[in-house]
Amino acid sequence: MRIAIALFEGFTALDAIGPYEVLQRLPGSETVFVGERTGVYRTDTGVVGLHADATLDEVDRPDIVVVPGGPGTRHGFNDALIDWAKQVHETTQWTTSVCTGSLLLGAAGILQGLKATSHWMALDQLPALGAEPTLERVVVQGKVITAAGVSSGIDMALTLVSLVAGDEVAQAIQLGIEYDPQPPFNAGSPATAPAAIVDLVRSLMGPAMK
Amino acid sequence: MRIAIALFEGFTALDAIGPYEVLQRLPGSETVFVGERTGVYRTDTGVVGLHADATLDEVDRPDIVVVPGGPGTRHGFNDALIDWAKQVHETTQWTTSVCTGSLLLGAAGILQGLKATSHWMALDQLPALGAEPTLERVVVQGKVITAAGVSSGIDMALTLVSLVAGDEVAQAIQLGIEYDPQPPFNAGSPATAPAAIVDLVRSLMGPAMK
Repeated sequence: MRIAIALFEGFTALDAIGPYEVLQRLPGSETVFVGERTGVYRTDTGVVGLHADATLDEVDRPDIVVVPGGPGTRHGFNDALIDWAKQVHETTQWTTSVCTGSLLLGAAGILQGLKATSHWMALDQLPALGAEPTLERVVVQGKVITAAGVSSGIDMALTLVSLVAGDEVAQAIQLGIEYDPQPPFNAGSPATAPAAIVDLVRSLMGPAMK
Repeated sequence: MRIAIALFEGFTALDAIGPYEVLQRLPGSETVFVGERTGVYRTDTGVVGLHADATLDEVDRPDIVVVPGGPGTRHGFNDALIDWAKQVHETTQWTTSVCTGSLLLGAAGILQGLKATSHWMALDQLPALGAEPTLERVVVQGKVITAAGVSSGIDMALTLVSLVAGDEVAQAIQLGIEYDPQPPFNAGSPATAPAAIVDLVRSLMGPAMK
């Protein structure tokens, strides 16, 4: 399995690293971070610089594609990345996204007629891209998998591993990364967070989602 | 709050990026990745290259320190990193680790007489470093916080934010990164995973922990 994780300026680090940490443990797989150019890509904060080791052109037949999201998407994805997603999707076994990475899949026409998810504050942007938004955390539609905001890529990747290699391999990877989540609060979804917290986050982060 | 996340060759990416994704959202904070030298550090797999923007010497008074773990620790941490941890710990407000990062804190004498945790397969290495191992996921001992394997850094960082800035800020960050974990299996801890999976992971990963 050749796994390609796409980078662009203004990506969100955990969107990319969550799936990486799971998928790179898939037996017989090879993971590479790809970008329009090689070299360091920065998150929107500039704090994280992640190195892309291959160009999009060089990785033209990945079996699994992961597209992270991030505030960089509010300026639109660059055409090269959209064209690449469209092209490699023809031969991938799985095409996946985390957070607003689904907006890129949508822009590439990949979500047409499918249920899909995204960061909860970006769900309203999916219909214009032909997708039917849902609040589910991981949405499997044929070979296309979209995941909700930021941290959901870990759940998405474990689901993907179970589909590719079976439940036991997924369980072994889960145990290897000791993924026994114990968040100190039950505030991770707009459905469970206190209403005042939902309003606060919407006012703080909302502008970055448009 | 000046937050420093330490990098070294052979670190585990999610150990560092989980806490980063939470802590960089702490209002009024500034996060930097530090290393003995600036430039790109590689995970043990070589797949991820993360850029350190400052040297240890340049960041001599961080308020919060995060030390990730990773297979690189099996060759021991370099002396520069241990000396730095020892020195900055004198003035930090919080000194934290994820996974086998606790072995570095231990080597720096920081865990002497404290309860601490690590990756479940490395817990047996803590007593030799003066610490009392515990299977808890996040262990707060005064200003020292240790977290269990790889993915636990997210829970650790949310706990830390609640201590630094209150529960509402932590909840807002949790919602911002949509941390509403839904692992497809209940295999994230040796206490809950099937025995055969525990044995499998122990045989595969055990050697890398020594």
